[in-house]
Amino acid sequence: MPYLEGKHAIEEALLAHQPIQRIWCASGMKPDATLSVIMQMAQDAGIPWEVTSHDRLNEMSERGTVRGAARGAARGFHQGVIAEVEPYQFAALSDIIAATRTATSALVVVLDHITDPGNFGAVARSAEAVGAAGLVVASRRAAALTPAAHKAAAGAFSYLPTAQVVNITRALAELKDAGYWVAGASEHASDLAWDSPLRGKIVLVMGAEDTGLSRLVSETCDFLIKLPQQGKVSSLNVAQAATALMYEYLRQNYETPHN
Amino acid sequence: MPYLEGKHAIEEALLAHQPIQRIWCASGMKPDATLSVIMQMAQDAGIPWEVTSHDRLNEMSERGTVRGAARGAARGFHQGVIAEVEPYQFAALSDIIAATRTATSALVVVLDHITDPGNFGAVARSAEAVGAAGLVVASRRAAALTPAAHKAAAGAFSYLPTAQVVNITRALAELKDAGYWVAGASEHASDLAWDSPLRGKIVLVMGAEDTGLSRLVSETCDFLIKLPQQGKVSSLNVAQAATALMYEYLRQNYETPHN
Repeated sequence: MPYLEGKHAIEEALLAHQPIQRIWCASGMKPDATLSVIMQMAQDAGIPWEVTSHDRLNEMSERGTVRGAARGAARGFHQGVIAEVEPYQFAALSDIIAATRTATSALVVVLDHITDPGNFGAVARSAEAVGAAGLVVASRRAAALTPAAHKAAAGAFSYLPTAQVVNITRALAELKDAGYWVAGASEHASDLAWDSPLRGKIVLVMGAEDTGLSRLVSETCDFLIKLPQQGKVSSLNVAQAATALMYEYLRQNYETPHN
Repeated sequence: MPYLEGKHAIEEALLAHQPIQRIWCASGMKPDATLSVIMQMAQDAGIPWEVTSHDRLNEMSERGTVRGAARGAARGFHQGVIAEVEPYQFAALSDIIAATRTATSALVVVLDHITDPGNFGAVARSAEAVGAAGLVVASRRAAALTPAAHKAAAGAFSYLPTAQVVNITRALAELKDAGYWVAGASEHASDLAWDSPLRGKIVLVMGAEDTGLSRLVSETCDFLIKLPQQGKVSSLNVAQAATALMYEYLRQNYETPHN
């Protein structure tokens, strides 16, 4: 059974009525506002609650402890709370497409083999925040939905339809058939994101951390877009770039046109 | 002496001629392109190179090992390489102000007591990417420049003037005196970022992860801006929000006006 770690992720899972088997809490923890809310919701939902040692939680934790955080910040990646959850229910790509059939604008984010679970989760969190219709990832050679991904997502996976597909290129073809325009993020693009047509039904494709978009995926895109890089460091983090591009999509599609 | 962890951070430090005392490399590591570049640069700069066990690197590492990464991705936070560096040379706020005295547009990012080193580093990476003039952080009750911060920054601290100040409100007053407009990021703002005047010399203030802007800092801002949140999860990660806002600054100040 997969674990969820950290108060925020567990609170969001409870709010989303994601099935939780049980919750472990570190003994001697000071109950803050979030923890009190978690305890109340768990009690209301009849979820068993178990107090255990902080060391035991560290052993259960995928990421273990965090050192170097500022004084007063949480010392464990799990923040003293871990929940056992049922396996994540992935969406089907066809469901994401069906849900946006009549929409005049919609955003689907596709990750072309991103390998870091933290990046996967961070993209999900931002995608949910901009109201994306769905997230599509590869089922192999890509980051899995680990607790690190759930933690970075801060509950976003509970709301954001996320589909795993065998073949990214084929998924893009299906989205195109459904009326989506496919924009690939690439440092080799000639057009800046804010000069590119992102109104309507848009697929934003983000490439892998090291290698970017694969050649086949890049060729499948209708157009490529980029963010200007003004500094001397070679590249933005993929989750940061995805967030900036998703907000550029939102700017262009927000209720009334904005300048 | 502080450590730098990971190939990207060390490569950028070498490229930036940041003083490095020595480099440790895990025995039995497969030398990829980046590692070869690091070895060559270290040799050219006369930096001692030591091969040691992966376990020893794990002990030296601030963050230790990473589990749950996709097959083929790095298994250690340090990626098999750790460098010992001289302490970071912080900039003075007055230097950041002086460097932009005659500029018609400039961006200074101020962090109001962000406590997570990863967020600190991630903001630095994005700030450097948009060509920000500087980053200002509090010297107390805030994330320190740890290896986790360096790693998330991927070398950005080598180029981005970063100042530590005792009092954020006083720093904002100094920036105002120097002709900057101070925009605070707040969920309570009534104006969206893309409806707000971000042309010219702008200070972007980001609040702490849990509590946002402090009351005093908020009152010191000339205006507040926000990103619309369309989802059900309550908030964007602070580094993600900062990145989207910094790119909105860049959009409004890019060579020619863009729609």
